[in-house]
Amino acid sequence: MGNGTAAGAAKVRVGIVGGTGYTGVELLRLLAQHPHAELTAITSRKEDGMPVADMFANLRGKVDLAFSAPEKARLDQCDVVFFATPHGVAMAQAQELLAAGVRIIDLAADFRLKNLAAFEKWYRIPHTCPAILEESAYGLVEINREAIRNARVVGNPGCYPTTVLLGLAPLLEGRAGGQPLVDASTLIADCKSGVTGAGRKPEIHILFSEASDNFKAYGVMGHRHHPEIVEHLERLHGGPVGLTFVPHLTPMVRGMHSTLYARIAPEARGVDFQALYEQRYANEPFVDVMPPGSTPETRSVRASNVLRIAVHRPDNGDQLVVLVVQDNLVKGASGQAVQNMNLMFGLPEDAGLGQVAVLP
Amino acid sequence: MGNGTAAGAAKVRVGIVGGTGYTGVELLRLLAQHPHAELTAITSRKEDGMPVADMFANLRGKVDLAFSAPEKARLDQCDVVFFATPHGVAMAQAQELLAAGVRIIDLAADFRLKNLAAFEKWYRIPHTCPAILEESAYGLVEINREAIRNARVVGNPGCYPTTVLLGLAPLLEGRAGGQPLVDASTLIADCKSGVTGAGRKPEIHILFSEASDNFKAYGVMGHRHHPEIVEHLERLHGGPVGLTFVPHLTPMVRGMHSTLYARIAPEARGVDFQALYEQRYANEPFVDVMPPGSTPETRSVRASNVLRIAVHRPDNGDQLVVLVVQDNLVKGASGQAVQNMNLMFGLPEDAGLGQVAVLP
Amino acid sequence: MGNGTAAGAAKVRVGIVGGTGYTGVELLRLLAQHPHAELTAITSRKEDGMPVADMFANLRGKVDLAFSAPEKARLDQCDVVFFATPHGVAMAQAQELLAAGVRIIDLAADFRLKNLAAFEKWYRIPHTCPAILEESAYGLVEINREAIRNARVVGNPGCYPTTVLLGLAPLLEGRAGGQPLVDASTLIADCKSGVTGAGRKPEIHILFSEASDNFKAYGVMGHRHHPEIVEHLERLHGGPVGLTFVPHLTPMVRGMHSTLYARIAPEARGVDFQALYEQRYANEPFVDVMPPGSTPETRSVRASNVLRIAVHRPDNGDQLVVLVVQDNLVKGASGQAVQNMNLMFGLPEDAGLGQVAVLP
Amino acid sequence: MGNGTAAGAAKVRVGIVGGTGYTGVELLRLLAQHPHAELTAITSRKEDGMPVADMFANLRGKVDLAFSAPEKARLDQCDVVFFATPHGVAMAQAQELLAAGVRIIDLAADFRLKNLAAFEKWYRIPHTCPAILEESAYGLVEINREAIRNARVVGNPGCYPTTVLLGLAPLLEGRAGGQPLVDASTLIADCKSGVTGAGRKPEIHILFSEASDNFKAYGVMGHRHHPEIVEHLERLHGGPVGLTFVPHLTPMVRGMHSTLYARIAPEARGVDFQALYEQRYANEPFVDVMPPGSTPETRSVRASNVLRIAVHRPDNGDQLVVLVVQDNLVKGASGQAVQNMNLMFGLPEDAGLGQVAVLP
Repeated sequence: MGNGTAAGAAKVRVGIVGGTGYTGVELLRLLAQHPHAELTAITSRKEDGMPVADMFANLRGKVDLAFSAPEKARLDQCDVVFFATPHGVAMAQAQELLAAGVRIIDLAADFRLKNLAAFEKWYRIPHTCPAILEESAYGLVEINREAIRNARVVGNPGCYPTTVLLGLAPLLEGRAGGQPLVDASTLIADCKSGVTGAGRKPEIHILFSEASDNFKAYGVMGHRHHPEIVEHLERLHGGPVGLTFVPHLTPMVRGMHSTLYARIAPEARGVDFQALYEQRYANEPFVDVMPPGSTPETRSVRASNVLRIAVHRPDNGDQLVVLVVQDNLVKGASGQAVQNMNLMFGLPEDAGLGQVAVLP
Repeated sequence: MGNGTAAGAAKVRVGIVGGTGYTGVELLRLLAQHPHAELTAITSRKEDGMPVADMFANLRGKVDLAFSAPEKARLDQCDVVFFATPHGVAMAQAQELLAAGVRIIDLAADFRLKNLAAFEKWYRIPHTCPAILEESAYGLVEINREAIRNARVVGNPGCYPTTVLLGLAPLLEGRAGGQPLVDASTLIADCKSGVTGAGRKPEIHILFSEASDNFKAYGVMGHRHHPEIVEHLERLHGGPVGLTFVPHLTPMVRGMHSTLYARIAPEARGVDFQALYEQRYANEPFVDVMPPGSTPETRSVRASNVLRIAVHRPDNGDQLVVLVVQDNLVKGASGQAVQNMNLMFGLPEDAGLGQVAVLP
Repeated sequence: MGNGTAAGAAKVRVGIVGGTGYTGVELLRLLAQHPHAELTAITSRKEDGMPVADMFANLRGKVDLAFSAPEKARLDQCDVVFFATPHGVAMAQAQELLAAGVRIIDLAADFRLKNLAAFEKWYRIPHTCPAILEESAYGLVEINREAIRNARVVGNPGCYPTTVLLGLAPLLEGRAGGQPLVDASTLIADCKSGVTGAGRKPEIHILFSEASDNFKAYGVMGHRHHPEIVEHLERLHGGPVGLTFVPHLTPMVRGMHSTLYARIAPEARGVDFQALYEQRYANEPFVDVMPPGSTPETRSVRASNVLRIAVHRPDNGDQLVVLVVQDNLVKGASGQAVQNMNLMFGLPEDAGLGQVAVLP
Repeated sequence: MGNGTAAGAAKVRVGIVGGTGYTGVELLRLLAQHPHAELTAITSRKEDGMPVADMFANLRGKVDLAFSAPEKARLDQCDVVFFATPHGVAMAQAQELLAAGVRIIDLAADFRLKNLAAFEKWYRIPHTCPAILEESAYGLVEINREAIRNARVVGNPGCYPTTVLLGLAPLLEGRAGGQPLVDASTLIADCKSGVTGAGRKPEIHILFSEASDNFKAYGVMGHRHHPEIVEHLERLHGGPVGLTFVPHLTPMVRGMHSTLYARIAPEARGVDFQALYEQRYANEPFVDVMPPGSTPETRSVRASNVLRIAVHRPDNGDQLVVLVVQDNLVKGASGQAVQNMNLMFGLPEDAGLGQVAVLP
């Protein structure tokens, strides 16, 4: 139950709370192949006793575990527990698990926003453990690696924020002659998500017959990921940020494509933005800055933890266009969560995450 | 409110019960363009007061009607009422509407099976008006035209039965030297349906994220359309019929493809099956027997009331393979219902049904 | 062969050059149902003699015409000829047809750009009839209705330009206190197209196995529709315009969704943009300004000539977000071409274009 | 270059001829992760010098190899060469490679059919090395394991044959009281394939805009996989077999679903078919016989080498219905090829093939 299990040593004992959604089954797919993790418990009150492979046939012969009711699962004997649950579940159990020495990775929003008021406004529930929130680390490895290493609680980022933050980080962190590289007050994120981003819920608008051969925006007047993105952009930038965020639903199962627009500041017209991105991510195992002129495809990262970025400056003008793709269920959710686990337990950061993307 | 409105005379006043599903919105699309029909009421208790175009944006500017609660809608002042409802609704209201002189077209199963026991076994509700069932007509125009013309109540066929019955009718009706053309005891219908066939219900298994890029069979051990198909095949054949029926779900919105297998009887080896089909359907406005060697595509009938058939006899052997395609929401449901209405009111059979299929 | 055929009079005799692509088959679908048009010839050298319904099975029983080699088709006896051809074909035949009194609607780019240099740069062919280009009318009815009425030659707009121009027209035409409503130098059009927008060509990148379950940008560094959009935006605006245009390919057959971003000018902060759009398009039969808060879906216009617009101003700030959807093959191509024909021949503008969109 | 490289010893040196199609990129995906294989050469005359990751972006950072022209690649220094090429290529190079001690796995048809006449009829090329064909092994491991182990040349099965043969093998091999279990003269295989089955070729009929939201049969009058299936069914059965085979194209990228129909022989009515299948495949690592009543989904095997089977006997009658799913690019092609390589080189049969299927 201790912190820090070295690679090669005993396996990390893993529990999953709420394994019947897409981030749950994706955690199972990744952890079933992880060389240093041992799945020990998965909870679902409703499905108590059902083998997970009965619900998700891809796991037949790969995962022997059955769902168990929360009170039966011995989560306190795990090294780490992933919450693949609706918002609000992790914070209700965090205190008790931490007391038992268990570390927590929440794939919902309970530990994403340091700003309590914003959390309560957007998620419409009171936050029940602000002290734990205070100590928790935001689980976007590429901008917060050291804090995550030692964190007892990690808030795994939302799918949209992962793409927008990694796509804009080099621009907001950077300075040219002491001045910002871009106008941080007029940023735009035009994002397109596959339908799994909406979860595995019985709702009409995400039926095949509604979402197939169809494209639409949604949440233009407000989306929960907006405050999350802005909070962390402002941290990177060291000042206020203005962002217009328009998410869209695109008829594919997995995948997210974010098209980001930033106006280059006059002082930064001479910057080599391609080089800026390449240097920023040179040592990142899961961020691929593509060659100039590239237009990354979502399928190039399907079922893998890689996120790809391409930087464009049309006509060498003042408008930067940054293209970012990821698999929303992997780098945008469960893969990133495993990456966090690896860091937290001193494992190689890419352990269990070496899959080649499935193309076609 | 009388029976029989001649073309050119006053429009047929149409009511729809339950317009929030796919057969409902498809009825609205077709009737909004129908030259001899006037939409007068559409009911939905839940959506009382909401303009139908607020739910289905394709109707904006085309249909001004709002949903109204059943008790407010003056269905008794309609000439005909379509039931685009779950099974059991039409039979609950049939007596009263008939008494008011209103004719009924039920798109659910209440009036499809003459065999009461089979109905109650498969739909798990008692039939509350067997006398009306007795007088009702099965609404498959191409095999029951005359009865429909004068019927007060029509049971609109299921989508699978429409393809299987029209695909096998020439074989089961026909005789060669007084003998059947095929072995009626070993018929097989391997059917593939688009996902709208499962309706507009909030259920996990028909989510985009479940049904897209996926293919599966279902209902192999029993499906409600099986007794409906067999009952009418036996009527056509004049004797018992054995049918193996395997429905599949295919990742497309609309469309149904049935691949039908029948063993040619020894006496019928000399029959020209292509000619048999062409003659059988020569005068049918909505059945297209394609040239020899054709493989009809579902998109060739998308959004149209046409059903296409191709007849194959591989290697000139004893196995016939009949391919049938339709749009499950048009010829397999709402278009066929309008075709029935046209017949019942003495209108041209193709009134309002002349749309060219949308390809691509 | 004269100009101006009144409704009710003799039908307009229509020829189509190049009917084997998607705009061709869509023209056939629409014209087969048009009350005032008569299809008289369709050319394809390669398919000479083949019934069009053999290539496009949706036309079986609806269109009897066969393709004929160009030299056999008597296009000079048509009232109007549509060119559904690659760029450069219409201009090669325009002189001769005009001399015979035939009017021309080109669905390719030959008559879209008045700027000859831009045309030759982007299409890499010399323009062979600049005088005809000079007299031709740009066929975007809602901004050029009067010129089209009397034009002998109409350049039918590109699909992207149709959405971007109609989506931005009210902003660029308008003034507040004599000042522009938006910063015309920082416009952004983030556009998503269904795959039919790429045409019916045997190319790897638009195979089902490449484009399905995938999303990507393309043409970020330059796209032929960019100069077309800018030329006409500048005309509307009466001054220079700066536009960043990023097209994307989305895995659907038909449909286009453009998300447009414009910064509100300080003088225009008090403008009611919803009202502005509603008034601008109040009398347009094919432009639907949706209620505040709407997010239009592409399927709501599938197979119809309607274009829908929604105007958003998140947090009542300075960034306008305009959402526009159309069917790229109808309002974005063949439907708009028929709308132009209707205008040119004095027919009701919506003749043959009253189809309700196919949803689902 | 020797035969038989034990696990743990030096890696198997692998060459690939023709890596620009879907079976090629899938081989690369699998071999890049294979613990005992080393990719040493991949040929493409047309793409000589291009890194494979420039063509298939999923391989960025995973495969460093570049395509090389055939004459430059030192294929004679490989232990095994995979041919992911059109039919006819492998047989042209087989003699020379075998002479150099290189073993061959052909993913095309050159070594699938022992019947030379059938090969030449269906593939329309003469077979240039009948002696090698004679010694080659048909690479369907589950029915031919021992022969494959020692083969110098393996003909990797077609995708359809893999499902039909494994789906019917227990029925054709079995006997009840010395009699066949089913009527081998009236077998039916109704098969549905994802579009990658048609390859990566620039052809109109497999464009997204043609194949999406569409379903059709093809090849009803004859398909190249028919003689391959029949040849091997007859070997299993020890006698003549009659098979009706109808392939269909379904709008998904990967996946194949075969629905197989067999009439139970009177002597076999008492057989427990579920047990028959379970016993037949009890020790097969890649064949999963599902519980009674199952309907396997193609996505449950997406990107994995597992093939799943479910056996149905509706109403306990005489018609068996066997459902089989596989990923056509893995068990139906490249995964099976790697499985063959593992066997041929004494590696664990599942080395490099342990991927959990990607669901959703």
